[in-house]
Order: sequence, then structure tokens, then C-alpha cells
Amino acid sequence: MRKVKKLRLDKENTGSWRSFSLNSEGPERMATTGTPTADRGDAAATDDPAARFQVQKHSWDGLRSIIHGSRKYSGLIVNKAPHDFQFVQKTDESGPHSHRLYYLGMPYGSRENSLLYSEIPKKVRKEALLLLSWKQMLDHFQATPHHGVYSREEELLRERKRLGVFGITSYDFHSESGLFLFQASNSLFHCRDGGKNGFMVSPMKPLEIKTQCSGPRMDPKICPADPAFFSFINNSDLWVANIETGEERRLTFCHQGLSNVLDDPKSAGVATFVIQEEFDRFTGYWWCPTASWEGSEGLKTLRILYEEVDESEVEVIHVPSPALEERKTDSYRYPRTGSKNPKIALKLAEFQTDSQGKIVSTQEKELVQPFSSLFPKVEYIARAGWTRDGKYAWAMFLDRPQQWLQLVLLPPALFIPSTENEEQRLASARAVPRNVQPYVVYEEVTNVWINVHDIFYPFPQSEGEDELCFLRANECKTGFCHLYKVTAVLKSQGYDWSEPFSPREGEQSLMNAVDSVPGQDRAPKGHVWIERQGGPGAGPGLFQVRTGTPWTPGLGGSLGWGFPDPGVLATAACRGPFTVSRARRLPPTAAPAQSRHSKAFIRKRSKGFFNYQLSGSPGKEGVLWSTLRGLGWAAEQGCQPDVASPGSQIAALSPAGCPPDYVPPEIFHFHTRSDVRLYGMIYKPHALQPGKKHPTVLFVYGGPQVQLVNNSFKGIKYLRLNTLASLGYAVVVIDGRGSCQRGLRFEGALKNQMGQVEIEDQVEGLQFVAEKYGFIDLSRVAIHGWSYGGFLSLMGLIHKPQVFKVAIAGAPVTVWMAYDTGYTERYMDVPENNQHGYEAGSVALHVEKLPNEPNRLLILHGFLDENVHFFHTNFLVSQLIRAGKPYQLQIYPNERHSIRCPESGEHYEVTLLHFLQEYL
Amino acid sequence: MRKVKKLRLDKENTGSWRSFSLNSEGPERMATTGTPTADRGDAAATDDPAARFQVQKHSWDGLRSIIHGSRKYSGLIVNKAPHDFQFVQKTDESGPHSHRLYYLGMPYGSRENSLLYSEIPKKVRKEALLLLSWKQMLDHFQATPHHGVYSREEELLRERKRLGVFGITSYDFHSESGLFLFQASNSLFHCRDGGKNGFMVSPMKPLEIKTQCSGPRMDPKICPADPAFFSFINNSDLWVANIETGEERRLTFCHQGLSNVLDDPKSAGVATFVIQEEFDRFTGYWWCPTASWEGSEGLKTLRILYEEVDESEVEVIHVPSPALEERKTDSYRYPRTGSKNPKIALKLAEFQTDSQGKIVSTQEKELVQPFSSLFPKVEYIARAGWTRDGKYAWAMFLDRPQQWLQLVLLPPALFIPSTENEEQRLASARAVPRNVQPYVVYEEVTNVWINVHDIFYPFPQSEGEDELCFLRANECKTGFCHLYKVTAVLKSQGYDWSEPFSPREGEQSLMNAVDSVPGQDRAPKGHVWIERQGGPGAGPGLFQVRTGTPWTPGLGGSLGWGFPDPGVLATAACRGPFTVSRARRLPPTAAPAQSRHSKAFIRKRSKGFFNYQLSGSPGKEGVLWSTLRGLGWAAEQGCQPDVASPGSQIAALSPAGCPPDYVPPEIFHFHTRSDVRLYGMIYKPHALQPGKKHPTVLFVYGGPQVQLVNNSFKGIKYLRLNTLASLGYAVVVIDGRGSCQRGLRFEGALKNQMGQVEIEDQVEGLQFVAEKYGFIDLSRVAIHGWSYGGFLSLMGLIHKPQVFKVAIAGAPVTVWMAYDTGYTERYMDVPENNQHGYEAGSVALHVEKLPNEPNRLLILHGFLDENVHFFHTNFLVSQLIRAGKPYQLQIYPNERHSIRCPESGEHYEVTLLHFLQEYL
Repeated sequence: MRKVKKLRLDKENTGSWRSFSLNSEGPERMATTGTPTADRGDAAATDDPAARFQVQKHSWDGLRSIIHGSRKYSGLIVNKAPHDFQFVQKTDESGPHSHRLYYLGMPYGSRENSLLYSEIPKKVRKEALLLLSWKQMLDHFQATPHHGVYSREEELLRERKRLGVFGITSYDFHSESGLFLFQASNSLFHCRDGGKNGFMVSPMKPLEIKTQCSGPRMDPKICPADPAFFSFINNSDLWVANIETGEERRLTFCHQGLSNVLDDPKSAGVATFVIQEEFDRFTGYWWCPTASWEGSEGLKTLRILYEEVDESEVEVIHVPSPALEERKTDSYRYPRTGSKNPKIALKLAEFQTDSQGKIVSTQEKELVQPFSSLFPKVEYIARAGWTRDGKYAWAMFLDRPQQWLQLVLLPPALFIPSTENEEQRLASARAVPRNVQPYVVYEEVTNVWINVHDIFYPFPQSEGEDELCFLRANECKTGFCHLYKVTAVLKSQGYDWSEPFSPREGEQSLMNAVDSVPGQDRAPKGHVWIERQGGPGAGPGLFQVRTGTPWTPGLGGSLGWGFPDPGVLATAACRGPFTVSRARRLPPTAAPAQSRHSKAFIRKRSKGFFNYQLSGSPGKEGVLWSTLRGLGWAAEQGCQPDVASPGSQIAALSPAGCPPDYVPPEIFHFHTRSDVRLYGMIYKPHALQPGKKHPTVLFVYGGPQVQLVNNSFKGIKYLRLNTLASLGYAVVVIDGRGSCQRGLRFEGALKNQMGQVEIEDQVEGLQFVAEKYGFIDLSRVAIHGWSYGGFLSLMGLIHKPQVFKVAIAGAPVTVWMAYDTGYTERYMDVPENNQHGYEAGSVALHVEKLPNEPNRLLILHGFLDENVHFFHTNFLVSQLIRAGKPYQLQIYPNERHSIRCPESGEHYEVTLLHFLQEYL
Repeated sequence: MRKVKKLRLDKENTGSWRSFSLNSEGPERMATTGTPTADRGDAAATDDPAARFQVQKHSWDGLRSIIHGSRKYSGLIVNKAPHDFQFVQKTDESGPHSHRLYYLGMPYGSRENSLLYSEIPKKVRKEALLLLSWKQMLDHFQATPHHGVYSREEELLRERKRLGVFGITSYDFHSESGLFLFQASNSLFHCRDGGKNGFMVSPMKPLEIKTQCSGPRMDPKICPADPAFFSFINNSDLWVANIETGEERRLTFCHQGLSNVLDDPKSAGVATFVIQEEFDRFTGYWWCPTASWEGSEGLKTLRILYEEVDESEVEVIHVPSPALEERKTDSYRYPRTGSKNPKIALKLAEFQTDSQGKIVSTQEKELVQPFSSLFPKVEYIARAGWTRDGKYAWAMFLDRPQQWLQLVLLPPALFIPSTENEEQRLASARAVPRNVQPYVVYEEVTNVWINVHDIFYPFPQSEGEDELCFLRANECKTGFCHLYKVTAVLKSQGYDWSEPFSPREGEQSLMNAVDSVPGQDRAPKGHVWIERQGGPGAGPGLFQVRTGTPWTPGLGGSLGWGFPDPGVLATAACRGPFTVSRARRLPPTAAPAQSRHSKAFIRKRSKGFFNYQLSGSPGKEGVLWSTLRGLGWAAEQGCQPDVASPGSQIAALSPAGCPPDYVPPEIFHFHTRSDVRLYGMIYKPHALQPGKKHPTVLFVYGGPQVQLVNNSFKGIKYLRLNTLASLGYAVVVIDGRGSCQRGLRFEGALKNQMGQVEIEDQVEGLQFVAEKYGFIDLSRVAIHGWSYGGFLSLMGLIHKPQVFKVAIAGAPVTVWMAYDTGYTERYMDVPENNQHGYEAGSVALHVEKLPNEPNRLLILHGFLDENVHFFHTNFLVSQLIRAGKPYQLQIYPNERHSIRCPESGEHYEVTLLHFLQEYL
């Protein structure tokens, strides 16, 4: 049965946009959505101009006022959210406070982030709202560089980390000594609180750490084994310095400091672009947590594992320099999909100190055999670190297709002094004991792809133990991410290191799922927090669980947060002893957890039986709760946070505002004709009138690694969707196949065919919403998104011009051949293996299908974008010109891949509203 | 008396564009335009919607068809115009032809320029149209590089020369030997015709000149003293080669060939960007026309004067590379106004050949004292060359403010061998005879600026003569450009060249104006052609005269070309013996002269009493006339060219077409309130109906060096203005103060205040036209232009938003600080001397005055523009974003400062028509 619904519309000034057939390309899918396919009165009603809700037309200035008015809220909320917490227990038995809590945040009246602290009282009155006051750690400290000009390194790091705030954005902390180390004003500073000098009572002046280095000191880290020392990266090499004496030593000598990037391709300890952008690793070196003592003269050896990178074979591209007036470009090594990645190796940097803390020698060490011989399959080092006792360095390796992951232990003795002298090198290799070897303790294999994450927690080994026990989340085993306790046997093979190495099979490991009954489709994701003193069998642990779909009411009961549908995607905290596959769900008493990577704990206290997570996942008592998520959640629930969970206490760190007209979106779900359950959310037009059809914006991301539809607060990043709704637009968001948190198979639907499946799901969801809610005007649908969502906006207009009247594409990838290795190959393979996929998925190669009517395509792009280069838009435009197609374009000369300057954001938002009101 | 006319309009969808007062800022100026200022019925009529002519709205595809349909005409005409003529006399007494005429042109059916020739018959029937047939010189020769990819050098040269055609775009010719030398397919070729082997009768295969050089050989020139040799530039150094033996020798060693432009700033024989772009000099070296013979072994010395350039202190900027997909930029030395220009010097390259034509030695020579000591005031070498006998090299120098010009003779003996050895250098300097010195033979000084031109013609000196006689056009003396015969006394001062040089006063010269009675405001401009054998007192000469304004009917009578106004700007050919200030105007029998730099002559024949110029300036008989101008003129006159001038004969080189709806513009003039007579032209709407008011496009350039309003054919470059008229728009073009051909004072109105005076004139002209013609709808005026015209379009919208409803700005200069030295400083002084002018004249600094309504500003810019960098638009957009102003933008990813790809041109034109039909 083929039913074609005809929708008609006559709109002034839009050329030939006159009629279309909504289902002309896929009417049969209607049968499986579970909704009636018969003609309905309200669908036909769009023929009637009176039934079409007309968005009020505002002048440009009027739109500016609307945007300006609500912008202050999002700015306030975003900036006020505290993060990066550290708890320090107070030992004063008679004092009123049990802990001091350190964090970063922006105090009232300030425009930059600073180091703050709060005191946690020992006694908290039950049922009361505990409001912790924010206290300044630093006395009148300006952390933002003068004129807000960051070094290029720092600016790019901010971009990779998607950092928007100014001021202090991260710090390192050494709990025993109370030492804080942080970057600010293009320099380094330190200060101390707690430790042997006790706790301060008034703000202090941090001390600048002077240097002889030119250029910024990046990625500073306190030496955990001796907090007199800290390390940093200067000019792409690793340095150490003594905080107290000011002594500085360069440990590696990779980079020559030449002005021409072409001639100077090596670095040490620095994560390259792809590693940062696509694998979320922002450092390239790791301190060994322990020191070795040698001899009786008090000589101490400290060591750092680092990645050495040689980018000489990586392509160089140019991106406009942010200093516009210079009319120059910056050169970047950018590995385009299918082209060479950097050559990599793991090395050790060691130095010895005497009893006075003076550095007496330094030594670079390399693996006993070349990295590429020992690990020939390895393309990326996803993560690295040390076991707590410093006995092993560990590294998480990935192959180039990202379908194989290996966890390897590397004893420091496997590294020998670097030398140009081959004989000396051979002698050192021969001296490596036969029982010293890399241990492969774990592997993951999939035919989809491996989503790299942080969850690897090695438990301390006992003395002489020949196995390593660790926690690891694994998505490959069942297709869903579960937490496992793994026990790996470390059996020495006996190698002669002067002979060529032949890699052997990895050790088999015992794996026990500890989060839930394996097979249940739940996806633990995010972070595991372990109490420090807990051993593998003894200590309890805390971890986040994203409730997968379909949601099985079970462990811990339903979420009970008042949503009509118990299957909404939410996050909960679970706790288990890690000894059996049994974990307890923490009472879901307050806001859904949406971690901001806060890894802080309050140590077990008086009568509490577990500890507390921050950022919206409250426990039973002494709860700490960041403003941001709490208020968001409260706004969405329409209730005060502290009434949601009887028996628990909410401590808001600071109050903040929310736009008065904020209405949270409604979450829905539907089944596609391929019988996949998809989730979506809808912002209903605020001025809903019975029988009226509203212009609709389909806001899309649609790519992997992202989930838009869940119960976290949407009033900040997606505040504009609420603005659109307040102006009379319906706003629809759908997480189609390819979005995350739904398991590998669901996400892997995009494998090798990005751009070919997503629009189907979006259109089906749109149809479902239209049927379900009745106020969607299917003749006036805009598709809009950024990045992958910009790409899909173009795909939508290319393949469904009869569905989408206009497309607004922000910073789109228009030709996959031009995107990087790490991302593109993970999802699309290398170009030579997937020519069709690359061709079909590149919008710039299909411009001839775009409509010939003007004002249906608006492209937006940051001119400085060094990730999805402005080239993508430039190339698309050249294709549009060749095909004689109309387009509109807005460029953001001062922006990279994300819009940061408030003026740019405001201009974009006003432009968006204006474009929609005129042309939708 | 202050009268304010109120015009009202209510237009849908244009926000607050509702009413304005046309004359609110300058009503009193109406009094001087000579037109009534009283309220008129037709002005008020725009209140009546019925009186407003509505341009028919076409779909995007409809507009594409309109553009596409007429584009073929302009393409055909432009490409078919022959140029670069050479006459060679045939010596065959019995043959039917007196001359063979060589030229470049695009034969029917071809898509690239080629070398062509025609035969000039000895006998031409009077009153008949002589049609010369085009003959191919080259046999099946592909001159365009494969895939149309030029070397970077050639591409940039094409850009500087504004070359649009493909194939052979220039050639060198040695008349005695009949040798042709040209660049093609990124290589060099030669062929011979005439000379000792006689004339060919069928097309020949040119011979490729092989090379050991890597990279393109640019700017090839035949050695005039020995056509076995030719010179070229390879990798920014000067080379010579023997065409017959293939021997190649590098003569200069300035450039190292490094990839990084920063490290390799020197060149020899190459004109830098500013010299090419702003002074129209495209070469940096000049062959001495004669050889010196030394000794009895047949050793011959050939020499080349060249400019050595050191750009090490010139700023480097980056411009996107045309190979888009590489995402790279090219580096350019770009001297921003107020910053360092290159360091320059004149040098000699000499080489000796033996009797077999083998090069036996080469020698670089430098001036006996450093160029900067000898000529400390000199910033630019505007022109250079040799006197015909090779006795002197000459150079035309300019100071940095371009208000002082000096002509200097440099005897070759003033140059000594370059050496690092200071003693050797001193010895060489001591050996320079005391009577060898530079002779300053001529100076020009002005407080406006000097317009550099080519008109310098030194007559041959007699043996032992101590004076030099030459022709020179001078604009500084009277403020209008006149032709002078100058006699300079060369009196030796006696210098000791081992001592520091103290420059002395230039020699006084006798100057006789030879073109007209001095004081009459006529402006000879363009070129002087002198018969070769004529001496200073004997030979007649031919030169172009632009009839200045106010036009004084006089010499030669009125133009008599049927224009209603005898004062229109036109060009005529004049002839005089150069002995007295008396010149005869050639009968203005046919098309107005609009030279394409054709310097060809037919030698005096049988009964003719003077020779003939090509490209539309016909003489009395045997007239040659290029198709382009002829047809244009014919089309504008509405008559056949051959009937315009009884008694003359017209020889069209080829027929070509013209759009059937072409209507030439009407020229008008008016007086501004400052009592300046301005000329304008108007394209009347084709569908003119009584009482209807038409939307109007003010097409503007407005900057110096350009005259848009004259009687040359406008149907090619400005064909779109006719298209606009055919769609119902009125199109107005006005040459305001600052445009050229009106004398220095008129042009100099812009001095130090670009952007501050031009819009006034445009608006006055618009008012005049509205009064005069009655069909202008002053509530719907668009301002549109490219480059300086793009700049003024923005200025118009900034300062007269009540006059201009929309502005369409192509490739605008938005901030003068970012433009180059040569242009900007000539007109605006250096920034430190004229801060106010730079500030007031930079549109990007006044964006807050732009309207807040969308769809009133469209910006267009070629992304690769290495002249007015895309930076200008980028910076403007960043300012617009900061100010929250709406804008529209179209970029042309494959274009530089001018649009070349037909797709880009078509897209621009469709976009223009669409924007106007929607928003005007």
C-alpha cells in the first residue's frame, strides 16, 4: 500500500518552493512506526493558511534584544559552575569542619575562574539545605594574560579541551604537602595550603615560578614522589624544575626551536593534534609515582614516561593566524585520513638528585628494542601511566583501524640509555635481565571500533605477586560497556634482548563483570572512583552508570524522577565491592549525575557508609551538589532539589539564575521501521494554540560519541532551543543510530557509511513527532546543526529537499578526505578501502542535488577553525559556484571550531533567528 | 532657502526601511546644478505604488538563463580582439602585399590565443570595406599548459597584467631576423618568419627551447644586438641562452632557491609586486640594444641593465594557495603602507661571446658607488631602458611620496665589477674616468602626485653631441598632461669616484610643448609612436590625445561623431613634426581610439603622407581597425563604421557579435555645487513607461587612474549594466572628482582624503539624473562596484544610508593601513602623516553607521586575492560582528582580485540580479 500525502503551501518570495510530497521517497516506513498512516485532518490543515502559525517578525534590533536579554543567564550559569574538586581531610579534632574542599570556579562579580575552597562542617542538620560559601584562595590574583592573549600552545589546548572560561582552568595538587601548581597569565604559579603549615585563614598571594625558558611552560605537573620538583613542556620538550631552588633542567632534546614547522618535526611529552582531538589525551608524559634510592649518598632517581613523536612524514597544512591584521597563517601538522600519522615511541626521562635536592644527572632512555619492533601493530598510544607502586609503566595501545586495543605493562628496566653508539646500545641491551619484558595484560577486539575511555584502575600488587588485578570497562565483549575486574598473570618468558624480538601472544586474563549481570544492556560510562586504601578484594568503589536502552527496571528500581517514561536516558551512581558481579545502585535522590570529571571523594566519616560524588550525584548525607546541574535539574523538574529526595541534604555551592521563560523539553521515543527504538526530545512552541501548525527546527548532531537526548539540564548549551520555542517554533532533537550510550551495534550503524543512514532516522522521527503532537508544520522544517550536525544539515537538504525547507550548516565537514586520521578512519576506514563511502558521505561532491532556490542554505564557519578547516566550507562554496547553486554564508573571523567570543555567538544567534523568520 | 523633499515608501519585508529625506544633508547644492529645485510631480509620484516600476521577479534558474544567454556574446567579443601588432614590410616588388601584419588573437573555433598574421594588400579599393583574413602562424600548437595550470610566477604575472585569455599572451619579435620568442605551456618556443629565409606560406611548428633550469623561465627577451641570444628569469635570477646552441648561463646569483620566502629575499631582473601592480612595470631588466666589440678575436660584449631587489625588510603575508585541496598558503612580500619597501639597485650583467657565439665570460657590475648613495632620494625605479645607440642606460626615478620624478642617464662605464674585495673595488672605482657620471636630464615635481606613464622617447644623438633630445609627456607643469620636446645639456662635472659622492643639481633642460598650445586643458595620454628613421627635428610622430574637459572645440574641429554633446570624453589621434608646438589632429573618421598598447606602424608608403595606428584610430587610407572597438563603436552609433568617414577605408579584422538587446548608455554632464563639471552616463531602463519610477543601480569605481564615462564601447566589460537596464533598472555611472583624464587638480581632489569626497559627487549626480530623466526611483537606489568601487559602495551605505537602499561591495579595501605602499602612499601619504585620513577613509572603522536592517549589504570577495587581500573582507566582517550588524557575503574560492573563471562570473552575476530583485 502506497500512500502519498500531498502538502501544499504558497509562500511569498520563495521562488519555486511551492509543493512537495513528504513521503514520496519512503512511504512504507510509516507502517512500522506504530502510528496511523491514514490522512489526518491536521496534516491536511496546513493547506489552510489560517492554520499556519506565523512567527512574529522582529526587526534585526528586536532579535538582538531577544538574544541579548537571555544571554546573560547562560553566561552566568556556565561560568559559575564549580569543578575540579579536591577534598582534604582536616585533622583538627576540635574544629567544626571535617574537610576542606578545593575547586575552580568563578566567584560573584569576577570574570575569570579562580581557585576557591569551602569548608565542610562535621555536623549537618538533616533535611536542611546546606549552602557552602565560596572562599577565595588567592589574594587579588589576575590569572588571565594581559589583553587576554594566550600563547599559541595554550590557545590550541583550550580549543582541544573545549575550554571557554578564562583565568585558572586547571591545577595540579599534591595532597601530602598541600602544594598547588597552576598556569596563569602565561606563567606558572604555586601556593600551599594544608600540609605541614596548616590551613590558611585568609587569601594568599601565589608565587610565580621564574624560568630561564623562553616560550610558555605547558602541562605542568608536580612530581608525586618528590613535590619539590615539577615538570613542564617547553618548546615541545620535557623539563623539570625545583620549585624551591629554581633549578631547571631540560630532560629531552627533540625539538630544535626552529620557526619553520617543516624543519622541526619532533617533540617529547606532547600529545599531538589527533591524540588530543580524537582520543581526549592531553598530555604526553607521566610521572612515576615512586622514587628509587641508590647508594648511601642519598641519591634519588625520579623518572618520567613520555611519548616521543616524529611528525616528519605528516602533512603540513596552513590555517589563518588569529592575529588577523598580520595576514599570516600558522602551520600545522595535520594527518589527513589515509596519510601518514606521526611516528611514535615510549621513552623514559630519568634524573638523579642528591640529598640537597640538586639534580646531579639526567638520562634519556629508550626501549631495549625499537618501539615499532616491539609493538609493530601499534598506531596510537591511547593512554599511559604507572601502577601505584611504580613497578610498571602501563600503556594502552590501539592499531590503526582502532579495532584492537592492548594494555601493556612496561617495567622501567626495559628501557636502556639512549645513545648514538651502537656498541654501547648493544651492551646495554645485553645487560637487560632475561626476565624483564613487556607484559600484555589485556586485549579488546571488535569489528566495529573501540571507544577509548579512561576506565582502567590497577589495584595495588602485593609484594612478589605475579599477577595484576585491575578494573576495566569493556564495550567489545557484549557490545555494551560493562565494568570488569580483570586478573592478569604476569609470567616471564625469558627474552634475550640482544636478539631481534618476536612478539608473543598476550597473557590470558580472568575477567569478571562487576557492574551488573552480563547481557543486560546497560552501559557504565564515565569514571570509576576508588577509595585509596581499598585493595582489589576489600575496598568499595563508586561508578557511574548510564542506563542503557531498552531500560530494564531492576537494580535499584526505576529512576523515579518523575519522568513519564521510565526509559529515559539518565545517569545514576552505583557502588559495589568489586568482588562479585553485584553492585548496588545508590539511591537516586537528587539531580541526575552529569559529571564534569570531578574525581573527588570525602573519606569515610563517622556513620556514613559510602562516599560522595560531586556534580549532581548526591548521596545520603553531607551531599555536595554543584549549582549548575542542580538548578538545571530543578528547573526541568519544576521543583526544588531538596524536596526530591527525602532524607538527603542538598548543599548548593552557589545560587544562579535561569531565564524566566525556560521550559524543559519533553522526551519521547519511537520505533523506526527497522525496529530500532530511538529517543528524541521536543521543545513545544510556547504559544501553542489548538489547530495551529508551527514552523519546526530539527536540531541535529547525529554523529558518534554524542548523546543529545537525556535528562541532563539543557538550559545552557542548548538555551537557544528554548528561545526558538518561545518565539513559536517547535524544536525537535533526535538521537538516531550512531549516537552514543546505546551500545556498539547502535553506534556502529554509521560504520563506513557516515551521512548515509542518519537522515533516515531524523526524518522518521520528524514524522513521528508530527503525528504524535499535531503542531508540526511539515511544510516548514529547518535542519540545523554544527560540526557533524552541520554536515548532516547539508545531507538533509541534499537528500530530502522535499522535507527540509532550509538548512543551516555550521562548520560542516564537506569532504571526508580532508578530515583527520584518528576520527575519519575509525568510522570510515582509510579511503582506499572505502571509496564509495567517502564519495557518498561527502556533501561537497553532491551539490548538484541542492535546491536552486535562494535562501534555503545558510553556511556558517569559523575562519580560524584548525579542526574542521574553513577549507571545508571554501571547497563546498567552490562546488556550489561550479554548479551555479545559491547559498548564504556567514564567517566568524575570530573563531575556531567552536564559537567563543560573545559577539560572535550573539551574531550567530541573531542571524539564525532572522534567517528562520524570513525564510522558514 | 532650505527645501527638503520627503520621499516615502512602504516595502514589504525590509524592516525599518520606510522613509528618508533625500536632501537632508545637502539641499543647497541643488541650486548650482542648473535644474529646478521646486517640488515636482514626478518626484512625489514615488509615493504612489502604481508609479513604481516593479522589476519582474525571476527564479534563480530564470536569472541563470538570462545571464547565460548573453554571456556568450561578451566572451566572444573579448577573446576575439586581436592585439600586439607588428608590421613587417615585404620587399617583394612584384607581390600583391606591402606588409605582413603579425598579432595575437583567438581564431574562430579556438579557445586560446595564438600568433596570427594577415597580409596587407598594396592596393586597396577606396570606399570599400577591406576584410583582412586571419591566418595561423603555428601549426596545431597547444599553448595553454595541460589542465590549464600555470606556474605560480606566470599566474601572478597574468593577475598583475589583468590577463584573462589563455594561450600565447605575449611574444618578443626581432624584425631583422624575423625571430619570434614566446612563452607557452610553461615552456619557451621560437619560430621565424621573414628575415633571410623569406615568408612562410603555411603554418609552422614552433621549436621548444630546451633548458636545464628547473622552474619556469619568465619574461623572455631576444637580445636585440644578437638575436642568437635571449634572456629570461629563472628562480628570480637573470639567465641568457643561445637559441641555436642551447648554451645557458646564469648571469646573476641573488636568489638561493629556498622554499621559505623569508630566508631568500633577493632577486635580479624581476619587478616586485608593487612595481607591477601600482606602476605597471612588468620587467626588471633591459637589454642594451648594441654590442661592444673588443680586440681582434671577435669578442663581443653584450649587456643587460637590471634591477636588483632585496626584500629582506619587507613584511611577509600569507595568501591562500590556489591549490585549495592542499590547504596551504603562499607567502608574499607585501609592503604595507608606511612599512619598508624593498632595497633596490641598478646593476649591469655583461657577457662576452666569441666568434662562434660561445659565451666566454660573464660579469656582474654594480654602480661605482652604492645606488642609495648616488640616489638617496629614490624609492622606486618607475621605468628604465637604453638610448637607441646603447650609449646610455636611462632610468626614471621616483621618491617615496611620488611627488618628484627624475630621469637619469647612466653610461655603462659607471658600472664596475662586483666584488667582495674592497681593495679591488676601490681600484675599479679609481679607474672610472672622471668624465663618466650619471646625467640628470629631467625632473618633475608636484604637490599632488606623479602619474607614471611610458611616454619617454629619446631621439638618436649625433656623434659627439653633448645634448640629448627627447619627447616626454608631463602633467606636473600645467596640471594637465602635455607632450614636450626636451633638450638636455650633458655637461660633465668631473667626479673622483674613489671619493664619496655628493649629488649635484640636475641639468636644466629646455622644454617645448609640442602637442598643443600650453594652457589649453587637453590631456595627451597613452602612447607616442615615432617613425623609426625620424630624428628629433625631422620625423613626424603620432600620438593619442584624450580630449580634456572642458572640451574646447579647436584643433581638428569638433568630434562630429553624432553625440548630442560635443564635450564627451573621447580619444583622437594627433600628428605633429615635434619641431614646434603645433600638432595636427587626424581626421576623426572612424571609431574612437582606445589603444590596446599596440605600437605598430606601417612604414610610409606610396602616396600616404602619414602612417596608421591600430585599434580603432583610423587614418585616411589603408586603415586597419580591430574588430572589438569597431563593432562597439558601430553598435553605439547605430551605423556601419565605414559610412562614418567618407573617403576612408575600414578594414575589420574579423566580424563578431553583440547582444541583440544592447543599447549604449547616454552620456550626460552636470555641474556640482562646487562648480566642477562632471560626466556621467545612464543606461535607461529598456521598458521605460511614462510616469514610472525605476529602481536604480549606481555603478561606481570612483578611484584614481580610471575613467568609466567615455565614448569607448561598453558592451564587453560593462555588458551587465545593459542587462540590468534590459530588466528594468536604470543604471547610472558617474566619474566624480578623483577619476582620471581631467588633470591633476581634478584627480587630486582625493589627495589624503580617499573616501571622503567621492560619495558627494555620486549623490549629486544621482540627484541630477533623477531631475533630468524623471524615471529614477530615489527610494530604490543600489550602489555597486568592485575594488575601489567596492570600497565606495561601503562608504555610500555608511554615510548615505538614506540615499542608498543597498550596497553591493566587491573586493573592497576596508582599511587603508592594510594596503600597499605604492598605491596608498601616493594618494594618502604615509599613515603617520595622515592619521585622520586613514581613519576617516577606512570603512571597517565605521561599521557602527551601517544600517541595522538585513539585506542591505552584500559583500563579495575572491578568496585568493593577493592584492586587496581577503583580509579586508575578513576584517570588515569581524567589525560587523563586533557591532552586531547584519551582512551577506559571497566568496569566490578560486578567484583573486578579478573574477576569471566563467562559473564564478556567472554566479556573481546571478547573485547580483537576485539580490537586486529581492532587496532593492
